[in-house]
Amino acid sequence: MHLSSLAKAKKTKPDMEGAKNIYKQIPISKTDGTPAYSFRVFTIEPGGHTPHHTHPFEHLNYIIEGHGMVKAQDAEYEIKKGDFAMILPNEPHQYRNTSESKPLIMICAVPKEYE
Amino acid sequence: MHLSSLAKAKKTKPDMEGAKNIYKQIPISKTDGTPAYSFRVFTIEPGGHTPHHTHPFEHLNYIIEGHGMVKAQDAEYEIKKGDFAMILPNEPHQYRNTSESKPLIMICAVPKEYE
Repeated sequence: MHLSSLAKAKKTKPDMEGAKNIYKQIPISKTDGTPAYSFRVFTIEPGGHTPHHTHPFEHLNYIIEGHGMVKAQDAEYEIKKGDFAMILPNEPHQYRNTSESKPLIMICAVPKEYE
Repeated sequence: MHLSSLAKAKKTKPDMEGAKNIYKQIPISKTDGTPAYSFRVFTIEPGGHTPHHTHPFEHLNYIIEGHGMVKAQDAEYEIKKGDFAMILPNEPHQYRNTSESKPLIMICAVPKEYE
């Protein structure tokens, strides 16, 4: 049994090329003994975005707060609080906050090998 | 890329011995092509609970709304909106809604072999 809260999880600013105004928390990871999967949380401030990139593992997302866009392959999709998204391995993708005032906060779950 | 929303995901009442006033949604599962992990959402109405049971796979939880208790091994822990919990494989557990008026809504992620 492992418990953590978003309010108390350490917040860091990831050093990733192409990222703007994003913060990361890691409530469940391999260091907590997770068997297979980890939960990170990204906060994307207004005007911010993740890199437009690709990698060999998937993302499972849940939008906790706010709204924005996710670009995947050649299309863009609106995402908002209460939405789930799955990005497949090797699928190019980028998340952007399209609000002028509110953060976009989302769970981004990945295999534990990557977090 | 797969998108779904909690508001539109089909809601069913699971037929599980020991469960009371719970509803299930499955926004991301093996039928959507998830590589390794699935996201279910349980809504536990006031007075409701999941079975007190055990199984050979883990749960990764995020509390979307409400508050309640999770029993794991011999202890009980308070859980509320914004909390994350990890139940390890073969760890006895039960979730209960302790509110008299509000639902407890949580993500319950599991390996895709189980959903």
